[in-house]
Amino acid sequence: MQLSLHSDYALRILMALAASGRRLSVDDVARQFDISRNHLAKVAQELQAQGFITTTRGRNGGMELAQEPQDIIVGDVVRRFERLDGFVSCLGLGASDCVVNGVCGLKPALSGALDAFLAHLDTYRLADLTPNRKAFLARLEAVE
Amino acid sequence: MQLSLHSDYALRILMALAASGRRLSVDDVARQFDISRNHLAKVAQELQAQGFITTTRGRNGGMELAQEPQDIIVGDVVRRFERLDGFVSCLGLGASDCVVNGVCGLKPALSGALDAFLAHLDTYRLADLTPNRKAFLARLEAVE
Repeated sequence: MQLSLHSDYALRILMALAASGRRLSVDDVARQFDISRNHLAKVAQELQAQGFITTTRGRNGGMELAQEPQDIIVGDVVRRFERLDGFVSCLGLGASDCVVNGVCGLKPALSGALDAFLAHLDTYRLADLTPNRKAFLARLEAVE
Repeated sequence: MQLSLHSDYALRILMALAASGRRLSVDDVARQFDISRNHLAKVAQELQAQGFITTTRGRNGGMELAQEPQDIIVGDVVRRFERLDGFVSCLGLGASDCVVNGVCGLKPALSGALDAFLAHLDTYRLADLTPNRKAFLARLEAVE
């Protein structure tokens, strides 16, 4: 059981933007975390499509948060970036394949557990993920 | 984010045993769920090592629950079968690799969310996963 790289990278971009308080390029964030630029660029597109960031083209362009860090709910980010309908095969669309589909109590138990997982993340705002903005930023900028 | 096949198969073996109330072979369960016999055999060994089942060799041998279905806590099964320390890279042993290790609030947020996930599963006993034992068993036996 692993958080997808998709969610992990989405959260890293958002945290870097929250800590820096300025426009950052995909290259900046890729360098700061030493992660794949290409994968990060796809996640950035998705963050824009989902309304979490805005992007500006050009020499001084880059990504900016579309909302204040205290207004972005962490559970919402994970909900949008994580594929949870395939958490176990019986939660997905092909659910009826399972021989005990409809008489098995595992599906509601796991659905409830995923709800509890997300509900916990709903208690965090993006701002909570960089509790000490200066220290977070110092670490990121030390890389550059 | 997906439950590992390891946990999924462990739960299926336990549910089949709980529903049938009798000794079952790995072959029986593999046939009932139409899943890999070899993978299931490894999971059965682990279930025995963890004290959830006992196994008997020989012609009439097979797997039996080591505890009553109402005494087996679903959260305990998932805790033993799921690798949660690698849920995100920063939860694992190589955590110090991350540039923001120690100043990032994501790690405690995700740890808490995983605790909430497991705490929800702790409210279920194995017996709750086959609420209608007869119907569950009828489905499994229809395969044979």
